[in-house]
Amino acid sequence: MVLDPSQSAHTIRADTVIRNIGQLVTVAQGPLPGASGPLQVIDHALVSISQGRITWIGREGEEEPQFQSATTEEDIAIIDAEGAVITPGFVDSHTHLVFAGNRAQEFHLRRAGTSYGELLARGQGILTTMNATRSADEETLLDLAQERLRSLSGYGTTTVEIKTGYGLNPEAEEQCLHIINKLNIADTNTLPALNEVRVVPTFLGAHSVPPEYRERREAYVELVIEEMLPRFVGLARFCDVFCEREAFTLEESRCILTRAKELGYLLKLHADQLSPSGGSRLAAELGAVSADHLDHASDEDLEAMREAGVVATLLPGCSYTLRSPYPTARRFLDHGLHVALATDFNPGTSYCENMQMILGLAMSSMGMSLEEALTAATINGARALALQDEIGSIEVGKQCELALWSIQDYHEIGYHFGTNLVRTTLVKR
Amino acid sequence: MVLDPSQSAHTIRADTVIRNIGQLVTVAQGPLPGASGPLQVIDHALVSISQGRITWIGREGEEEPQFQSATTEEDIAIIDAEGAVITPGFVDSHTHLVFAGNRAQEFHLRRAGTSYGELLARGQGILTTMNATRSADEETLLDLAQERLRSLSGYGTTTVEIKTGYGLNPEAEEQCLHIINKLNIADTNTLPALNEVRVVPTFLGAHSVPPEYRERREAYVELVIEEMLPRFVGLARFCDVFCEREAFTLEESRCILTRAKELGYLLKLHADQLSPSGGSRLAAELGAVSADHLDHASDEDLEAMREAGVVATLLPGCSYTLRSPYPTARRFLDHGLHVALATDFNPGTSYCENMQMILGLAMSSMGMSLEEALTAATINGARALALQDEIGSIEVGKQCELALWSIQDYHEIGYHFGTNLVRTTLVKR
Ligand SMILES: [Zn+2]
Ligand SMILES: [Zn+2]
Repeated sequence: MVLDPSQSAHTIRADTVIRNIGQLVTVAQGPLPGASGPLQVIDHALVSISQGRITWIGREGEEEPQFQSATTEEDIAIIDAEGAVITPGFVDSHTHLVFAGNRAQEFHLRRAGTSYGELLARGQGILTTMNATRSADEETLLDLAQERLRSLSGYGTTTVEIKTGYGLNPEAEEQCLHIINKLNIADTNTLPALNEVRVVPTFLGAHSVPPEYRERREAYVELVIEEMLPRFVGLARFCDVFCEREAFTLEESRCILTRAKELGYLLKLHADQLSPSGGSRLAAELGAVSADHLDHASDEDLEAMREAGVVATLLPGCSYTLRSPYPTARRFLDHGLHVALATDFNPGTSYCENMQMILGLAMSSMGMSLEEALTAATINGARALALQDEIGSIEVGKQCELALWSIQDYHEIGYHFGTNLVRTTLVKR
Repeated sequence: MVLDPSQSAHTIRADTVIRNIGQLVTVAQGPLPGASGPLQVIDHALVSISQGRITWIGREGEEEPQFQSATTEEDIAIIDAEGAVITPGFVDSHTHLVFAGNRAQEFHLRRAGTSYGELLARGQGILTTMNATRSADEETLLDLAQERLRSLSGYGTTTVEIKTGYGLNPEAEEQCLHIINKLNIADTNTLPALNEVRVVPTFLGAHSVPPEYRERREAYVELVIEEMLPRFVGLARFCDVFCEREAFTLEESRCILTRAKELGYLLKLHADQLSPSGGSRLAAELGAVSADHLDHASDEDLEAMREAGVVATLLPGCSYTLRSPYPTARRFLDHGLHVALATDFNPGTSYCENMQMILGLAMSSMGMSLEEALTAATINGARALALQDEIGSIEVGKQCELALWSIQDYHEIGYHFGTNLVRTTLVKR
């Protein structure tokens, strides 16, 4: 990915050139020519793109190469960034974005003293949304999801993971996966111009035991393993399990994820959110790509995750909503873990599409620096989706998924809060 | 302000009628016909307005009066709220909105360990902004302020208090007051259609001792008392003082505010923010309209404030920015104080125009319920400006300053966070 300086005299493929970039914040890993600081900032930068991939990065006017389009007749499109700050688009690696209804009433019940665990045990919480989602038709669900994608994209997100888990039977889960795949223009092109967000589908049939299986949960686990997992191969990149006292036991989680791994799914876990469930250790044992939440993970758990290369995904929107203590990011960083930040967008515990809000909470309440938070929201989000070679930083060879900011200096991020500082996203396929 | 039911058969003056309001959240104090709950919610409501004042409130179609415009030729304008939730517009009773430059670098210095007190003592902090503001011309300052007003209004604020305090000499403070007054279209009409925000001016010459007076602070206090205060009568509604170890002593504050009171200014104080300065007790002693911050106010201080009828203005944006503990709102409410919420919009300790963000922090981190937070951000903001008879709630006789929300139920406020839920403000003069 590192630029070869000898190349600069040569001709570079480009169908698009972005000029007049005030600050290019690459979040690249290795050193880049002309870049400085932990986030690799290039002032007065230029980026060229060919067929959706970045082909050159550097200072504008300095040893600039000749740009040539792949087809000689084609003109090169010039985008004037007007001095803007450009960063990688946000990679929101954990959402539950396809659902109907909302749970505002439950939110206020909880504030009046009812615990989240109690609500789950009573069949409220997730099951309220399951009922609303099962009753909604596909068009409604698609419309709602598209509106949310537009909102999320307006705040700078260019790639988003979306989990199923409000269907909880084979038909409803499959419908949800079809919707998620339809939302992904990169794959289907069925919804052009509606959104420019890359969507990564995750199967979360093991989100909650549905009411019709309450007295025979083994049968539901079997349904997930024997019917749903084989049926959804190719429709979902990841399989996830909510490993928690009120959801699925450690042993049930192990059975489901083991089968998923055999079938070629990549793995994720909702781990140690409400209690020490053993989920993060299981993530390490099975080589999961990420373990998410981790409020109750021990130092030994984190050490196991580090050794296994599991990304730690922190979701401060839940602490904000549930008014529980925020996880201390320093602990995870000190263990040498890759820390990712995500919205956990869902109607129960984090009704928030805005990655800038999440980044702000991480800086205000979790002790993260701006550099750590931006890394967590871009390249480490990509790691949590096993897409770090494709997206998450601005490097030659990577896909063009950028956020263009209406600020002069990236240091204004987190400092100027509560308003949308992103002017637009800039995605080329 | 209470509706007389016998009036409903009669003719009501109106030049504007807002129909099809899904939920009207009045935040009125006494009981209103058809309203229920602590915030007085009326479903399927209608509001009529004549010459900027509310003339009728009730359920649509139920004992609706005849509406007649003041001039018979004039048609009545009908506004279709399309089922929206309508609340009073936010009253942001504490901002420092007129300034040039920003302090993003200082923000990151503080995060790396430098305390706010240290920065103030070093002549950074406020004085950095003083230098930038003194160097800027009037047009620049006006442009910046208008942009901020547009942003603030987009998030639902209809009345905003603005303090001087970055000029810190007679000429620069006066220029700032002129700008603040120009921003107030209600008074001058010089900037029509640019914003619909009511602006309340506050003189805060005693924000910090400027560097040219560092060795003779008594002379600066004298300058404020002898020259600035008399000169600015009529230009500012309030006089405020930053009563704090690093700013003005209790005795200096008392001298300035006593003179201000004699001259007819209403009083405010920045009190007990960084240390127990005695400011809240002084506010009670002098009958100030509000005391603001109050992080270090004792129970005895709060009791004195309650007896004197001083509004307690809490500013969670500062805790968010400085990463200091949030004040516990319950303490203030349990003392029977009127609690107001405001942004404290300023470039050092709370760079935030968005009252929805402030309300969210109050609910997430200060233990306020939605009802308490909405009350604090509307009618109690009005109390903090001594304007509770004019604005802050939706009642017959009050001015029409409304926020129209893109939600179905006001309970979504605070629950759905990080995005702008306000569709528009609706202000009639
Ligand atoms: Zn989740
Ligand atoms: Zn202030």
